[in-house]
Amino acid sequence: MTPLTGESAVTVLGLGPMGRALAGTFLRAGLRTTVWNRTVTRAKELADHGAAVALSPAEAVAASPVTVVCVVDYDAVDAIVRPDIVAGALRGRTLVNLTADTPGRARDTADWAAGHGIGYLDGAIMTPAPTIGTPGGVFLHSGPEELYRRSTPVMEALGGTHTHLGADPGRAAAYDIALLDVFWTAMAGYAHALALARAEGVTARELAPFAAGIAAILPPIFEQAAADADSGRFPGVVNPITSAVASMAHVIHTSEAHGIDAGVMRAAESLARRTIRRGYGSDGFLRISEMLAAG
Amino acid sequence: MTPLTGESAVTVLGLGPMGRALAGTFLRAGLRTTVWNRTVTRAKELADHGAAVALSPAEAVAASPVTVVCVVDYDAVDAIVRPDIVAGALRGRTLVNLTADTPGRARDTADWAAGHGIGYLDGAIMTPAPTIGTPGGVFLHSGPEELYRRSTPVMEALGGTHTHLGADPGRAAAYDIALLDVFWTAMAGYAHALALARAEGVTARELAPFAAGIAAILPPIFEQAAADADSGRFPGVVNPITSAVASMAHVIHTSEAHGIDAGVMRAAESLARRTIRRGYGSDGFLRISEMLAAG
Repeated sequence: MTPLTGESAVTVLGLGPMGRALAGTFLRAGLRTTVWNRTVTRAKELADHGAAVALSPAEAVAASPVTVVCVVDYDAVDAIVRPDIVAGALRGRTLVNLTADTPGRARDTADWAAGHGIGYLDGAIMTPAPTIGTPGGVFLHSGPEELYRRSTPVMEALGGTHTHLGADPGRAAAYDIALLDVFWTAMAGYAHALALARAEGVTARELAPFAAGIAAILPPIFEQAAADADSGRFPGVVNPITSAVASMAHVIHTSEAHGIDAGVMRAAESLARRTIRRGYGSDGFLRISEMLAAG
Repeated sequence: MTPLTGESAVTVLGLGPMGRALAGTFLRAGLRTTVWNRTVTRAKELADHGAAVALSPAEAVAASPVTVVCVVDYDAVDAIVRPDIVAGALRGRTLVNLTADTPGRARDTADWAAGHGIGYLDGAIMTPAPTIGTPGGVFLHSGPEELYRRSTPVMEALGGTHTHLGADPGRAAAYDIALLDVFWTAMAGYAHALALARAEGVTARELAPFAAGIAAILPPIFEQAAADADSGRFPGVVNPITSAVASMAHVIHTSEAHGIDAGVMRAAESLARRTIRRGYGSDGFLRISEMLAAG
C-alpha cells in the first residue's frame, strides 16, 4: 500500500460498496485521495490504484481539506468522527456526510460540527454505487451555500447531477427519505402485484411490460399534481378518490380470495375511505396526503 | 335524437365518462353506433353526433352484432344484461365487457354468457377516458381467440393498443387488478412522500421532479426483476432486503416524529422483516412477493 504522504484533495471514510465507488471515482478523476476503513484490507484495491491509506480516522481527515464519509448510518458516522482526536483534526476543515439517515440526525450532526468548528455539508446519494462516476449519479446536498460552493470541484469529480437544496442541513435527508418512501412503497406494490398475478396464473414476465407501462405514466402524474398539492387542491375530475377506493377494494378482495396478505393496500384504502368520510369524495386520491398528517 | 333504425355495427351500454368516450370514438371512426343509458339524457350529445338511441337494453343489444358494456361494476352489468329479455336478445351475439371488476366476477359472467348462447369477451381499459380514440389507449382482452379475432375490427376503431391475453375470461381482469395494485400503491407512496416533505418544509413542486426521477427508474427495475422472479430468484447483490428495511425504518421514524401516519410503510416493512427472519436477508426486496402468499 502507498504510505500516507503529504496533502490529499479528498479523504473518504468508509469503504463499503458506496465508499469504494466514491474513492475509486475520485482517483480516476485524478484527485489525490486518502482512504480509511475500519477493516484495512478493504483499502487494498484502492491503494493499488494510488490511494493513500490512513490507519486512523484522525490521520485520514488531517490529510485533506475535504472529508467525505459514507457509512451504514449516523451511529456509525458518530463512532468515527465524534472522538475528540478526530473532531480536533477536522477543525477548520469540511466534512461532507453522504451517509443516509433521517433529517433530524443530519441537523444534530450539523449542530455538533458547528460546535467543533467543522464545516459541515449533509448530502444524499439517490442512485446505487454503479452509477457513481457516470452521468447517472444523482447527489443532493444541503448546508451553507458558501461551503457547498467551495466543495463543488471535489463533488463534481464524482460525475452525475449535483443539486444544492439549501442551507438547512436536514434538507438532503428530507428529500432522501421522501424519495425512498416513493421508491419502496412502489416496490411493495409491484411485489404484491407479482404475488397476485402468480395466483391468477400470470407470470412476472407476462405482467412486467404492463407494470412498466404503469410506472411510466407516474412521472407526469407526479409533476402535474404538485402545483395543485401546494395550493391544497386535489382535483378529482378524471379520477375521483371514490373510483380509487373501488379499484383498491377489487385488489383487496382478489388478494384475500387467494390468501394473499393485503395489508399494504388495506392501509392505503383505509386512509382513502377516511378521506371520503371527511367530505372529500369528489377530490383526487392525493388528498390523502393531507389526511396522513391530520390523523 | 335519431330514432333507432336498422342494424348498427356496435352497441354501447352505459354512458358514464368512459362509455361516452367509447361511443364517441366509434362514431368518429364511422361505425353505426347504438347507445343506451339508464338516464337517457346522457345520450343527447352522442345522438347529435349520429348515435341511435335505444330506450331499453334489449332494444340496444338487438341493434348490433357486438355490444360493449362499460359501467361501474359487475353488479351494474348484471342488472342490465341478465334479465331474460336482454339475455334472449344477446343470444348469438357478442358481449364485450369492458367494466372493471375482479377475475372471479369475469369468469362468473363468462359462465352465465355461455349458458345463454352469448359470445363473451372480457376486457379492461388501462388508461383514462381522454385516451380513448388516441394512440395512448391501452386495452386488454380475454376470452375465446376466434371471438376476439372477429371483434377486432370494432375494437380497433377505438385506437390505442389492444392485447389478447388468452382464452381464460378472467385474464384481463387479473392483469387489471395487478396493475391497479402497482398504480394505487405507488400513488399512496407519493401521497405519503408529499406529507413527509411538507412536514420538512419541502414543497410538492420542489419534490416532484425528483419523485418523477424515482418513478422513471422503476420500469427497467420491474422488467429486469421479472425473469428472476419467475424462477423464484430475487438477487439482492446491489440492494439486499436488509438495506431496504433500514431505509423503510428511516421513513417510518421520520413520519412518526412528525405525527404522520406510516401504516402503509409499516405494513411493507413488517413483510420485509418477516422475509428476513425466514432467512432471506441477502435476497432482494421483491422476495416479499413469495412471503405475501405464504402467510
